[in-house]
Amino acid sequence: MAAKTDTEVIIGGKVFTLSGYESEDYLQRVALYINNKVQEYSKIDAFRRQPLDTQSVLMQLNIADDYFKAKKQIEWLEEEISNKEKEIYELKHELISSRIKLESTEKAMKAMQDEISAYEKKFLRMESEIKENKK
Amino acid sequence: MAAKTDTEVIIGGKVFTLSGYESEDYLQRVALYINNKVQEYSKIDAFRRQPLDTQSVLMQLNIADDYFKAKKQIEWLEEEISNKEKEIYELKHELISSRIKLESTEKAMKAMQDEISAYEKKFLRMESEIKENKK
Repeated sequence: MAAKTDTEVIIGGKVFTLSGYESEDYLQRVALYINNKVQEYSKIDAFRRQPLDTQSVLMQLNIADDYFKAKKQIEWLEEEISNKEKEIYELKHELISSRIKLESTEKAMKAMQDEISAYEKKFLRMESEIKENKK
Repeated sequence: MAAKTDTEVIIGGKVFTLSGYESEDYLQRVALYINNKVQEYSKIDAFRRQPLDTQSVLMQLNIADDYFKAKKQIEWLEEEISNKEKEIYELKHELISSRIKLESTEKAMKAMQDEISAYEKKFLRMESEIKENKK
């Protein structure tokens, strides 16, 4: 586990010192994400008119909304993965039965080859027999 | 698109009226998630000691952290999906070539069957020929 470190981030113009195991880079990206929201929201009059504590709760709700939408997407992706796993299972099954069929067909073919060469021998014997009889 | 509705949620004991297209049920779940965090954090002295505006920024950071971790998970899941798609592609490819091989083997077998029955006919003709000659 990484060592616990202190990282200074600036959010809404105020400096906050965050102590934790997350990398500085990560915490700065999180801070940037929040600052972008603050900026975006400060453009909206209806938001600016709210008392500061209401503004920050609305910010919390907005961030939580991003989180819930991401969780929803995770559910979809997990469902997609289990569907793909089903498909893989079925394909592997089909592949195995196709290979088994191929194997038995090749065995049958080998048996026919033996039958054919047996006929060839028989045929040659009979040909010479016929020649003998004609003499 | 759903109609825009007003929903009252209670966060940190304060009532907020949220106007939007999200269902009441959804907004209540988001509010519950935030309230659970508020409750969890109010147990921590180091958090309670912070001024309120700092507390709410720390809350924002904590929620944003959940969001960023969910986004990371989305990246992993999307990578897993593309790996599974590769696997499906390869399995389909193997299945097709296995079926093609089976088809050509069955054709070759059919040809051998014809060869065998030709030999059988030939064999019978020759047998009768031999009988004739023996007379």
